[in-house]
Amino acid sequence: MVTISVIGSGNVAFHLINALQKAPDIQLIQVCAREKRNLLNILDSTVIVSNIADLKPVDICIIAVSDDAITEVSKSILFENKIVAHTSGSIGINDLSAKNKRAVFYPLQTFSKDKAIDFTAIPICLESEHLEDYLLLKKVASSISKFVYSIDSKQRKALHISAVFVNNFVNQLYQIGYEICDENNIPFDLLKPLILETAEKIKILTPREAQTGPAKRKDDKTIASHFAFLTDKKKKDIYTLMTQTIQNNE
Amino acid sequence: MVTISVIGSGNVAFHLINALQKAPDIQLIQVCAREKRNLLNILDSTVIVSNIADLKPVDICIIAVSDDAITEVSKSILFENKIVAHTSGSIGINDLSAKNKRAVFYPLQTFSKDKAIDFTAIPICLESEHLEDYLLLKKVASSISKFVYSIDSKQRKALHISAVFVNNFVNQLYQIGYEICDENNIPFDLLKPLILETAEKIKILTPREAQTGPAKRKDDKTIASHFAFLTDKKKKDIYTLMTQTIQNNE
Repeated sequence: MVTISVIGSGNVAFHLINALQKAPDIQLIQVCAREKRNLLNILDSTVIVSNIADLKPVDICIIAVSDDAITEVSKSILFENKIVAHTSGSIGINDLSAKNKRAVFYPLQTFSKDKAIDFTAIPICLESEHLEDYLLLKKVASSISKFVYSIDSKQRKALHISAVFVNNFVNQLYQIGYEICDENNIPFDLLKPLILETAEKIKILTPREAQTGPAKRKDDKTIASHFAFLTDKKKKDIYTLMTQTIQNNE
Repeated sequence: MVTISVIGSGNVAFHLINALQKAPDIQLIQVCAREKRNLLNILDSTVIVSNIADLKPVDICIIAVSDDAITEVSKSILFENKIVAHTSGSIGINDLSAKNKRAVFYPLQTFSKDKAIDFTAIPICLESEHLEDYLLLKKVASSISKFVYSIDSKQRKALHISAVFVNNFVNQLYQIGYEICDENNIPFDLLKPLILETAEKIKILTPREAQTGPAKRKDDKTIASHFAFLTDKKKKDIYTLMTQTIQNNE
């Protein structure tokens, strides 16, 4: 049985706690949460504490708080020489206090509290200072996910940047589609099957194989007509830049 | 029973023919195809003809060929006064020859021959010159899809542009994620659950509600560190432009 505590009550903490609680061979000892009521649906209130100082020593303490709080939180932990892992894509392992055995437990996914998620399908990226810590972290990660990877800090940074492109920027392109539909009295629902299929295709084709459309086939007439149709400067700029990028990729 | 013929053997034609063949109350009379063998898996070879001049009059003839061939193909049809519909997002209804009753039958989806697709979930956008033609087209569309919309030529153009943003440009962002992973020896598979969840979220949240990440939370430190990490100029340009667009959207 691996003993674990979690610090945090945001979206990552919420879904992680939910998964850890259901996992065999894991005992969730305590959760330290500023926002208790976020967790009361999924957690017995007696395990929730408000102060980091109240956390007892455990095999692994997972810090799932916002990036800029991670270092401070790791310093506030009173116990020493245990595994302390953060869950951030963009913070280095060395930003954790050295009084504990530093590690990273990064679930690569976008979390919303209002949307249930299958944790077993989420890749978990692990990093640690010591091999024995890695093996324990891997045991825990494997008990909640089918996909566990060893990823160092530089790779994790690259992954996080990739995630910004395929998640935040992609979502912003959805927003642009939403706005164009809205301006033309078209229900956004019309685009949803296309959005889903575009993502589904990537399961079996590389993005390069999956590419279609006027940019790819160098259909200058359609490209010019689209550019003329758009009135917003930012949308025009994105149209031009993405079209060029597709064409440079051939 | 509505009689139909289809001209074309590309991806749209392939999936459309496949759906029409299985639909009740529809009789697929002929298919005119340059590339016969693309269709032999799904079609009896006796219904396939090579010349448009060999097409018999039917209730609806659907032209599913590349955009720049549509006008010529519509002129080559020998019969008159039947419904002739094209399947393009970017061609106007008036680009069809006026000797037949012009219409549009635009399935809004990305098609690959190698990937099966559930046609019943694809929105079909209809336009016609006459109401009675619309009603017949709607009957056919409803027999292969649950989602049928009346969309005029200007709306269809807006939709097509939206589709370029949420499909072609989104796919290019997947390609950038692929390249960053590749350069850092990370399997692209790690990003696939995130890509899928990003699309899935749009079913229940608006893109604005779904947005997260460093641009949205104005995390200038992370943004600067990502920008410094990227070496390729186009990727830097896209990072900056998309970040600005997300921030202007708040």
